[in-house]
Amino acid sequence: MAKLLVRDLAQAVSPAGTQAALRGREAMRSLDVVEDAYVLCDDGRIAAVGRMSDLGRVEGEVEELDGSGCAAIPGLVDCHTHAVFAGSRVGEFELRSGGATYEELHAAGGGILSTVSATRAAGEQGLAEALALHRSWMLASGTTTFEAKSGYGLDRETELAMLRVVRDAGGSPTWLGAHAVPPEFDDADAYLDFALAEVLPEAAKLAEAADVFLERGAFDAVQARRYLEACRAAGLRLRLHADQFTEGGGIPLAAELGAVSVDHLEATGPDGVKTLAASDVAAVLLPVAALFLGRPMPPARALVDEGAIVALATDFNPGSAFCESLPLVAGLACTQMQMAPAEVLAACTVNAAHVLGRADRAGRLAPGYDADIVLLDASDWRYLPYHLGGNHIAQVIQGGKPTA
Amino acid sequence: MAKLLVRDLAQAVSPAGTQAALRGREAMRSLDVVEDAYVLCDDGRIAAVGRMSDLGRVEGEVEELDGSGCAAIPGLVDCHTHAVFAGSRVGEFELRSGGATYEELHAAGGGILSTVSATRAAGEQGLAEALALHRSWMLASGTTTFEAKSGYGLDRETELAMLRVVRDAGGSPTWLGAHAVPPEFDDADAYLDFALAEVLPEAAKLAEAADVFLERGAFDAVQARRYLEACRAAGLRLRLHADQFTEGGGIPLAAELGAVSVDHLEATGPDGVKTLAASDVAAVLLPVAALFLGRPMPPARALVDEGAIVALATDFNPGSAFCESLPLVAGLACTQMQMAPAEVLAACTVNAAHVLGRADRAGRLAPGYDADIVLLDASDWRYLPYHLGGNHIAQVIQGGKPTA
Repeated sequence: MAKLLVRDLAQAVSPAGTQAALRGREAMRSLDVVEDAYVLCDDGRIAAVGRMSDLGRVEGEVEELDGSGCAAIPGLVDCHTHAVFAGSRVGEFELRSGGATYEELHAAGGGILSTVSATRAAGEQGLAEALALHRSWMLASGTTTFEAKSGYGLDRETELAMLRVVRDAGGSPTWLGAHAVPPEFDDADAYLDFALAEVLPEAAKLAEAADVFLERGAFDAVQARRYLEACRAAGLRLRLHADQFTEGGGIPLAAELGAVSVDHLEATGPDGVKTLAASDVAAVLLPVAALFLGRPMPPARALVDEGAIVALATDFNPGSAFCESLPLVAGLACTQMQMAPAEVLAACTVNAAHVLGRADRAGRLAPGYDADIVLLDASDWRYLPYHLGGNHIAQVIQGGKPTA
Repeated sequence: MAKLLVRDLAQAVSPAGTQAALRGREAMRSLDVVEDAYVLCDDGRIAAVGRMSDLGRVEGEVEELDGSGCAAIPGLVDCHTHAVFAGSRVGEFELRSGGATYEELHAAGGGILSTVSATRAAGEQGLAEALALHRSWMLASGTTTFEAKSGYGLDRETELAMLRVVRDAGGSPTWLGAHAVPPEFDDADAYLDFALAEVLPEAAKLAEAADVFLERGAFDAVQARRYLEACRAAGLRLRLHADQFTEGGGIPLAAELGAVSVDHLEATGPDGVKTLAASDVAAVLLPVAALFLGRPMPPARALVDEGAIVALATDFNPGSAFCESLPLVAGLACTQMQMAPAEVLAACTVNAAHVLGRADRAGRLAPGYDADIVLLDASDWRYLPYHLGGNHIAQVIQGGKPTA
């Protein structure tokens, strides 16, 4: 494989340090910025980042890419998506926009179970095609590492198919076996009996983590504990959807079980912030979902300032966040959650990679990391969050290869 | 000029009716939707829209464009931008995101006067180049008709240069002579003496409308009246920035003077809504500015339901809305202001064209209108607002010619 030399960059920017996760205002705001820079990639990894004036002769076959006028940042990492789904909920979006109630949406056939129905009907090939389309959107907006969850199958065949298509697409698969109770079960406990006995053994071979939706109307704290303990025993890392609408005990449960993250946190109060800051559980914030549903934003400023591990993600899904754009998430984090741009970059790169257990490979522009690089057609990388709804993605390099 | 036939469209969608402006829930939600459609353009105008099955033989030289899988909507109309500016305020964005106060921003050299300084220094050619870049972004996001204001010059030479570059770029120029008081004047009245005596006579030959920023710290209602009356006497249509931070009497003043629009309205209460609904003054809503500054959203639902003429725009500017994307505005209008997708389409097309006095030419996909058409790579046009931060713009046709 030829080397790739990205040359004459206006700047190359990376979260500083070597820690697997960055905590606190000072660490999250520390960037390594090299002006008039090059990035050399070799065999899919970053070999060197430096100033053009320090660039010596590069041996062997070298492909060169002109980065003039561009800023380079690490490939973005989306650590929370539901990118495998079939069907469309644009009609539901229209009804909700125009003021329809939750009951009216259900009567019109909307809601998560409509996606379950379409996803079950799609077949594994159909799901792979849907993910390929969504993946192309993600890549075009700078995401080079992604997680995607199951949870729209809720039967054995479809859940496993969802996990396979994520794995086969190079993503990090999460078994969201406890997303909702499917219509063929009368209650959550009976469904969990089935899921843990019939799906978990195979899901544990495919997935890297397990996830549960802990919320009124979904799974309660007792059920979430049962699900997560079984998944942990099967070797999966643990994650929780928690505190989206109500504080339901997800944070203390996550801390007790040693979960890698709790995600959402729109309803989290000061005690939850303190518990997270004192733990190794990452807070994954999803501002687009808050925006889509008209919820308050999660307490990002307090989480960062008190020292929690903070990551950002899209929550890309057809119901509550039809958005795969981490650049838009970055802009919302700056404007709606008072995060500084450097904090946002850390939250979309190194900290998100940490949530996926890939912090040794993804999230930094530094030697030894995967050669996943985004070139922005701006000489200052901060245009990424500043230019709301803009498109500064000039080129995305994945594994040392330009993708466009 | 050859004809252009856009064929095999999944759908062609246009606000219904022939009125210059649409008012009220029912009218704004009425769309003409043709499935399996074609659009025929001739000599820069739309000649016909219909079903493929009704397409007869087209005489003469015809260029064909395959619209398979695409939805066609009218080219979008951005009726409120500050797209002519020089310099960058990304540093100010970073400071504000991280929690800096207004005073700290000013101490760091931020604020509108930093843009005035850079804009004065850019020269007319520099301003033309800046607008060309911004115009290319706007076109890429589907905007085929745009307004842009002066107001970053605040001296004779730069104000007139700004208006010329907008006119030369095919935009609708608005003289925002009363945007701020420049540093060389001690007070607003002294500045207005100068602007009305020295700039207005030439500005009136270049601009299509005049605009004033009626707000604490800018111009008060007495000064706004003086400015607007002089501009009206010079033949300009009238617009106001009003009720952004405080209700300052802009709405009754607009109604009394017969202004074409009041823009912003984040602070407007029920009385202002009623006054607008009973008048012919359009309400131009700018949700990105509200989002950027953490302001409440304007009362869109009440304005539509009570029958005001409602338009949407980006407010594209470097300080409070670095965003040229009407698709993002559309998504925010649906999710943050409870507007239905069809209302949003009317507000970004026909009603925005009305604000610019171009409703006879722009804003509809119907015979006789300018052949400005956006093709979305979605078979359902509602993906435009639904897909937040997504990019569904497959092709933009302006004056009957594909632009990409």
